[in-house]
Amino acid sequence: MDEDPPVPETRVLAVASHVVSGYVGNKIAVFSMQSLGCDVAALNTVQFSNHTGYGQWTGSKVSAQEISDLFRGLKQSYLDDFDMMLSGYVPGAEALEAVGRIAKELRDVSRENQKPGSFFWVLDPVMGDNGNLYVARDVVPVYRSLVPHADLILPNQFEAELLSDVKIEDMASLGRAIQVMHERYAIPHIVITSVSLTHPDHPVSSLSVVGSTMTSDRRARSFKIVFPAIDCYFSGTGDMFAALTVVRMREAVCATPGLSGVVSWQSGDEVDALDLPLAKACEKVLASMHEVLTKTREAMRRGEGEMVNGTGTDGEEKKRQRLVRSKAAELRLVRHLDSLRFPKVKFHAARM
Amino acid sequence: MDEDPPVPETRVLAVASHVVSGYVGNKIAVFSMQSLGCDVAALNTVQFSNHTGYGQWTGSKVSAQEISDLFRGLKQSYLDDFDMMLSGYVPGAEALEAVGRIAKELRDVSRENQKPGSFFWVLDPVMGDNGNLYVARDVVPVYRSLVPHADLILPNQFEAELLSDVKIEDMASLGRAIQVMHERYAIPHIVITSVSLTHPDHPVSSLSVVGSTMTSDRRARSFKIVFPAIDCYFSGTGDMFAALTVVRMREAVCATPGLSGVVSWQSGDEVDALDLPLAKACEKVLASMHEVLTKTREAMRRGEGEMVNGTGTDGEEKKRQRLVRSKAAELRLVRHLDSLRFPKVKFHAARM
Repeated sequence: MDEDPPVPETRVLAVASHVVSGYVGNKIAVFSMQSLGCDVAALNTVQFSNHTGYGQWTGSKVSAQEISDLFRGLKQSYLDDFDMMLSGYVPGAEALEAVGRIAKELRDVSRENQKPGSFFWVLDPVMGDNGNLYVARDVVPVYRSLVPHADLILPNQFEAELLSDVKIEDMASLGRAIQVMHERYAIPHIVITSVSLTHPDHPVSSLSVVGSTMTSDRRARSFKIVFPAIDCYFSGTGDMFAALTVVRMREAVCATPGLSGVVSWQSGDEVDALDLPLAKACEKVLASMHEVLTKTREAMRRGEGEMVNGTGTDGEEKKRQRLVRSKAAELRLVRHLDSLRFPKVKFHAARM
Repeated sequence: MDEDPPVPETRVLAVASHVVSGYVGNKIAVFSMQSLGCDVAALNTVQFSNHTGYGQWTGSKVSAQEISDLFRGLKQSYLDDFDMMLSGYVPGAEALEAVGRIAKELRDVSRENQKPGSFFWVLDPVMGDNGNLYVARDVVPVYRSLVPHADLILPNQFEAELLSDVKIEDMASLGRAIQVMHERYAIPHIVITSVSLTHPDHPVSSLSVVGSTMTSDRRARSFKIVFPAIDCYFSGTGDMFAALTVVRMREAVCATPGLSGVVSWQSGDEVDALDLPLAKACEKVLASMHEVLTKTREAMRRGEGEMVNGTGTDGEEKKRQRLVRSKAAELRLVRHLDSLRFPKVKFHAARM
């Protein structure tokens, strides 16, 4: 019964939003990493009643000053001994700069200690989706300035466009965007989640995750994992993906002799794209994601009968139904712990 | 592999403190309940860098107004459909009154809907320990006014004295304190954690948990569970105990036909103290606690060699060692998930 966690003792600093009810930001990331054995320090950048996809919420944001103060509090009590950091949604440019200073300080300390690979920053550059920016304009240049200090970024398709200045229209232009990001930012690992581009090889209504670990001369080593789309919009999937990537990347790197002592856990040039620890990590992450999303969709279907009991004609009733649907689409994580812990890999990395 | 959670779908509102690093308050309660399958809404009453036992921390408290606002945010989006509520540390009398209003409102709604047993409030009256009050004086009367609205309280020995006005010096006076609380507050379920009273029947250096579910005429039905003490001071144990009690109480009640539809899940007068669902729940909670504390103590012992590498003479070094010891005593929860999920019951409820 007592299955060991997949990673050795790992202290992670997770900086993202907190919602009282539901599963986005740190609310989903912290549990995902804890359930896989990580000791997570959760620095919450907001406390909202629920995620903004509901269209209404209460609560407040944490200031840049308070973010810096909380980190100072950790430092003064020797609680800043982090192996990894995950940063997600941060409200505003000033607060994001504060988070960037924390990451750079942790990075500098690990370099001073001459322990390559002892600190790894997973940066989720949360800016927008599907062509819409949902942060202030001045946040974009801050992310561009921070990416060179990160080890792994997880932009979605739109965010990859913002970082690369490449218009992504097909798998070929996606590949170019990845190459541009490796070259421009020297960012070692890139994962682009939920790519919805069609390709002759892909089944209809499939999505892909595309990843790459660059070589020593910044050439992309790209792979894709194609999986069937689920016909529903879920919030928090990006946050869950990022959190699981933290754990599974560490697991895959620890399974590769010597790699955890290499700067940014960057595989030697002889390693093929399909053999990258990043590819192995993404396969497991995607397996967990697909199981949880499938189970969430099933539970939604079971609940749909009771949802449509209003007339649906007046505005109040329509609003109520929209809110009830948002709640039903919250990821069913806590009742499917084994999907996180023991995912069954069904979709494998393939060449681009 | 896929073990079902011990409880049916359960939505819990957890109101307590949040620490970035470490395991007290909601930081330990939320994970404990989530890992057992509960959908937990976490309303954080503070965000501190670490628990106050370190002697220094940064961060801030959430105001009474913000607590009320967050609950209003939940209500307006139909997210207030809670089966249970757990309230822990709340900073100050005004904020505690706000939390009390939330609990009373949830209770009133469940009564209006004529669904007895559909809402259950576990109230941890956090006031102090070992004779020391660590909240403001004016918090005590607020707790006294709230206890009659709760279903289960978990005072420690000192808090039981404050609520009962009985000086607890031995198992007999402890029993009187429980009887007074049942009578005075009509509180159905009481659990007193970490009782350190000696008794001719108990082994040396043992502790007890003492619980009682009252009868219809407010008579105590008390049991005790005696277990070996662990020679170390841990923070967060009360919060973990309370969180696990939420889940295991619901589990035990669901296993008793008809009981989940009874007001306050109060067993019929014919049920013996040792057969109470509360006794079954406490046995499992204590089993989990004892496993996690034992493993934490073992890990501390392994780490003690490296800790004593300073001279220990000057003040700075002493302070550093104290801080490092505080960190080492943080409960090792996340790497012992199966101790939460599948506890092996070794200590059984006995008659008082």
